[in-house]
Amino acid sequence: MEEQSAADVPPSRRYALGVEYDGSEFSGWQRLSKHGESERPGEETIQGALELALSFVAGHPVETVCAGRTDAGVHASCQVVHFDTHAVRETRGWMLGVTSRLPPSVCVRWCRPVPSDFNARFSARARRYRYSILNRAVRPALGRQTLSWERRPLDADAMHRAAQALLGENDFSAFRTVHCQAPHARRELQEIVVRRDGEIVEVEVQANAFLHHMVRNIVGSLLMVGSGERPEAWIAELLAGRDRTLAGPTAPPDGLVFLGPRYPAEWDLPAEVSL
Amino acid sequence: MEEQSAADVPPSRRYALGVEYDGSEFSGWQRLSKHGESERPGEETIQGALELALSFVAGHPVETVCAGRTDAGVHASCQVVHFDTHAVRETRGWMLGVTSRLPPSVCVRWCRPVPSDFNARFSARARRYRYSILNRAVRPALGRQTLSWERRPLDADAMHRAAQALLGENDFSAFRTVHCQAPHARRELQEIVVRRDGEIVEVEVQANAFLHHMVRNIVGSLLMVGSGERPEAWIAELLAGRDRTLAGPTAPPDGLVFLGPRYPAEWDLPAEVSL
Repeated sequence: MEEQSAADVPPSRRYALGVEYDGSEFSGWQRLSKHGESERPGEETIQGALELALSFVAGHPVETVCAGRTDAGVHASCQVVHFDTHAVRETRGWMLGVTSRLPPSVCVRWCRPVPSDFNARFSARARRYRYSILNRAVRPALGRQTLSWERRPLDADAMHRAAQALLGENDFSAFRTVHCQAPHARRELQEIVVRRDGEIVEVEVQANAFLHHMVRNIVGSLLMVGSGERPEAWIAELLAGRDRTLAGPTAPPDGLVFLGPRYPAEWDLPAEVSL
Repeated sequence: MEEQSAADVPPSRRYALGVEYDGSEFSGWQRLSKHGESERPGEETIQGALELALSFVAGHPVETVCAGRTDAGVHASCQVVHFDTHAVRETRGWMLGVTSRLPPSVCVRWCRPVPSDFNARFSARARRYRYSILNRAVRPALGRQTLSWERRPLDADAMHRAAQALLGENDFSAFRTVHCQAPHARRELQEIVVRRDGEIVEVEVQANAFLHHMVRNIVGSLLMVGSGERPEAWIAELLAGRDRTLAGPTAPPDGLVFLGPRYPAEWDLPAEVSL
């Protein structure tokens, strides 16, 4: 028998949202203020903006859980969140109504009802990121919001070969920030591809989950291989050494886009976030 | 015998620059203030910003001539300008020095010495533009600076077929704004391709030259074909009718990027701007 709400309140439903954002002007995903409090200027977060819009449309305070918290300046083409509400709306109404209350740098791409045991964070089996580097003498102007910049010529093939040493289940302590709060550093890196398209070098990487700063620390070390400062075998040595102080610097956030999580097909979510 | 300048002034040299810009926050290419005067807030132009930076590096006032003036909000991946100077600098010095004095939305991609009979405007044999439309129910967030948005589903193949009626040398009066100052409306449209890549529909077009608003007016009419409001044959009818009042609305500037002019190979300019 289903749990019954008070007579005049419809039962709570869970929804999943696909959220796209340009993180340039945000302090990252995670709300810093208490829930319901407004954020201080210069400290706006994507979670804060989204929950404000969702709460307005729902008519009651709404909290969200996301698939992967992104840092300040990092973007997402398809972040996924879930939330619970007793407000009755069509999925299209959520998508358009919430988007209309969001700043221009954030939108809701889709909305799906999900079972109450779906969890945007814990149901995800994989996450995917893309890091884009403009590799030329002059800084980017057009599209600079989603590009980082490296003026030294990069050997993308050498970076690709070196990166393959990271595949599989490994202890990624060498690529983890000291602020990382994860209980252990074992992650399964499922795919990493480095390729050049004209002046742009792209690193695309998929793992079951990532440690804090893991993608940007991997990219920072791969850049040292690509520029010839370190040999290809150095990446395997770094991984084996588990010592963060030996790896390259953390690459800047601008080039990083969270492409989204991947869920088992049984959840019946859009193809781009399904396995 | 070469013309001789005053004894202490080196002879004037002409340079060509490849200029990239995000036009979102500019009032277009063309300087509105008098040369040497500062521009009013909210009326900054790309030409004004570039000439200010060039004049600083040259140490004397510099004026530029461009291949194609772009409207407010329109971008360029490779605008080409020429300028004359008696300042002696390496081409790399011009590129990096001028870029360092430009706002983040503008940069100089390359600099080449050119003969004094090269003219960025009159030596160009073709110009190329790309117009990108995000075609989905929800407005863009990530990458919104260079996308326009159409929520109605578009048939890109129908748009492509309809557009082929514009090929060749034609009178483009139907796609010309009333403010266009060109003495006649005959232009040679050399290529037009409409294709879909996921949620994005791109229109890429090349002509010997374009009338004012010509690309955006063509796109505005093609959108009416793509959405099914007008039949494919309508584009050919519009062209033949030469009546601007019958064509579709002018598409917004955000989606438009000037890919650059094309010059005969004899000028020895970078491949991307050479025929």
